[in-house]
Amino acid sequence: MNSKFLYLSYEDIVKVNLPMSEVLKAVEDGFLEMGNGRAEMPPKNAIHPGGGDNYIHGMPCQIPQMNSAGIKWVAGYPGNTANNLPYNTGILALNNIDNGIVYAIMDCRWITTKRTGAASAVSAKYLARPESETIAIIACGVQGHSNLEAMNVQFKLKTVKAYDPIKSQTDKLVAYAKSLGLNAIACERAEDAVKGADIIVSSGPILKVPYDTIKEGWMEEGAFASLVDFDSSWSRAALAEADKWTTDNVEQYNHYKDHLGYFQNCPKIYAELGELVAKKKKGRENPKEKTFAANLGIAINDMAVAPIIYKKAQELSIGTLLPL
Amino acid sequence: MNSKFLYLSYEDIVKVNLPMSEVLKAVEDGFLEMGNGRAEMPPKNAIHPGGGDNYIHGMPCQIPQMNSAGIKWVAGYPGNTANNLPYNTGILALNNIDNGIVYAIMDCRWITTKRTGAASAVSAKYLARPESETIAIIACGVQGHSNLEAMNVQFKLKTVKAYDPIKSQTDKLVAYAKSLGLNAIACERAEDAVKGADIIVSSGPILKVPYDTIKEGWMEEGAFASLVDFDSSWSRAALAEADKWTTDNVEQYNHYKDHLGYFQNCPKIYAELGELVAKKKKGRENPKEKTFAANLGIAINDMAVAPIIYKKAQELSIGTLLPL
Repeated sequence: MNSKFLYLSYEDIVKVNLPMSEVLKAVEDGFLEMGNGRAEMPPKNAIHPGGGDNYIHGMPCQIPQMNSAGIKWVAGYPGNTANNLPYNTGILALNNIDNGIVYAIMDCRWITTKRTGAASAVSAKYLARPESETIAIIACGVQGHSNLEAMNVQFKLKTVKAYDPIKSQTDKLVAYAKSLGLNAIACERAEDAVKGADIIVSSGPILKVPYDTIKEGWMEEGAFASLVDFDSSWSRAALAEADKWTTDNVEQYNHYKDHLGYFQNCPKIYAELGELVAKKKKGRENPKEKTFAANLGIAINDMAVAPIIYKKAQELSIGTLLPL
Repeated sequence: MNSKFLYLSYEDIVKVNLPMSEVLKAVEDGFLEMGNGRAEMPPKNAIHPGGGDNYIHGMPCQIPQMNSAGIKWVAGYPGNTANNLPYNTGILALNNIDNGIVYAIMDCRWITTKRTGAASAVSAKYLARPESETIAIIACGVQGHSNLEAMNVQFKLKTVKAYDPIKSQTDKLVAYAKSLGLNAIACERAEDAVKGADIIVSSGPILKVPYDTIKEGWMEEGAFASLVDFDSSWSRAALAEADKWTTDNVEQYNHYKDHLGYFQNCPKIYAELGELVAKKKKGRENPKEKTFAANLGIAINDMAVAPIIYKKAQELSIGTLLPL
């Protein structure tokens, strides 16, 4: 065998500079395939070196219509942040569908960050009011930024209300929002951010014991919320206000709920995101519904985007060709 | 983050040239950890691009005592052989246990070939007669060679009896056996190879509908058989002669049996290989037993060997350092 593969480092992928609009389109296309039953995505499997909340997940997926097959192997180490290392690290491999041979390996940080924001925006496309213009970002880290970027592509946003318990984090997001040409308000209380928002993104740390940051009665009629941090930032009473509660993958959601202790006493699932995209279930049906997406982040998002990064890198002669 | 990882191609790993004796020791050490419940190895997950018998398996594992954590991502494409491509291809990644960051990526063909032979020899150490000197190899491909190499390390072999339906394959194995200084006989019938053998290795293609190559009454009293091709080469009556039937992983064996259609009407499992190595169950108890290993090939084998290849490569300055 005389095969080569393209290796793309994090810096290479930053150089490829795939626009969020293309990430968003790819992620939506992936959900369409999933909703139509044309993707193969077994549950993640995991090891937990060092114990605690450390994990490394094996996330394979194939999407035949998108000529995509591969795996993401992604670590999440909560302790890394204190050591100035990313919480998520890892790699992603793409396989030739015809012979199974790996043709690309890439660092997975960029794709993990961007596709997570994009999945929120795809949910919002089907569940938020199309005229949404005010967004609340609760916790202003990497995902606060990525979600804002994606929502700003999907909607004609005007105002961002940012809240983070760490003031410097709030300020960072405010500066980013201004760089996008948006009106940005640093809120001292989560309540000030959530009230009046058309879209709410909660993107704090994922906790087994939720912290009741967002309380009953704050979410406006007709608002949409994307819970990037699962149910960690919401009181049970606030969640009980949901008219529609959705996720990206029911099977894995139930695994998190039944075996890992997340999503306790949350509303009943109305739909999987793929079902909304494939028009098998209706998204928002009136301007008054309070709608929620509790997306877990699944392999189909990665496998929808990765081949596009590969193709652009090839066109731009970015990356390193290596023998297998 | 400013991390680098070591990339090792197939040629790099051939250059590392880890002796089979060290592969064998590492694989046995891995089974000891597994037998003592000190490894974490979730079931493989899989995608099947192109359908048919194509698969790509995600095989994660951690062995804390061996400071090893990672995944093998390995494709099996039966159609590749006709196109002069390997049946198995793929990669393996090793992660730092302390922060989860990938520190090595390597081609997985060498390790897959060698560890599979080594696992047979570990089974044989506990299940074959120590004085075994005659081995039958039924089907003389890559695994015929690797199993012979490993058995020849574990035992003082004198004679190899080779059978393959394709004569040129038989001749290749005979030449290889002679290069090891062994007496080698090309057999025209499987029966001639199996009769009189102390150790039998069946290593043909893995078939959902077994082909009754090896018949009842051929296996000698006191012989041991390693079924690298699952139950594909054996008649049910021949398997029913087993006094002890073992596997490397009961959970995955049962998955193959109950969900994938392999191992139908096979004997009841006596022990997992790790239990034999950890002395939780007895291996061979007398010189008359007919003993069997139906090993599936599991991630712990790969993760036991890979860090040793990495270390040797570093010592020999083999491989390519790349930024994540």
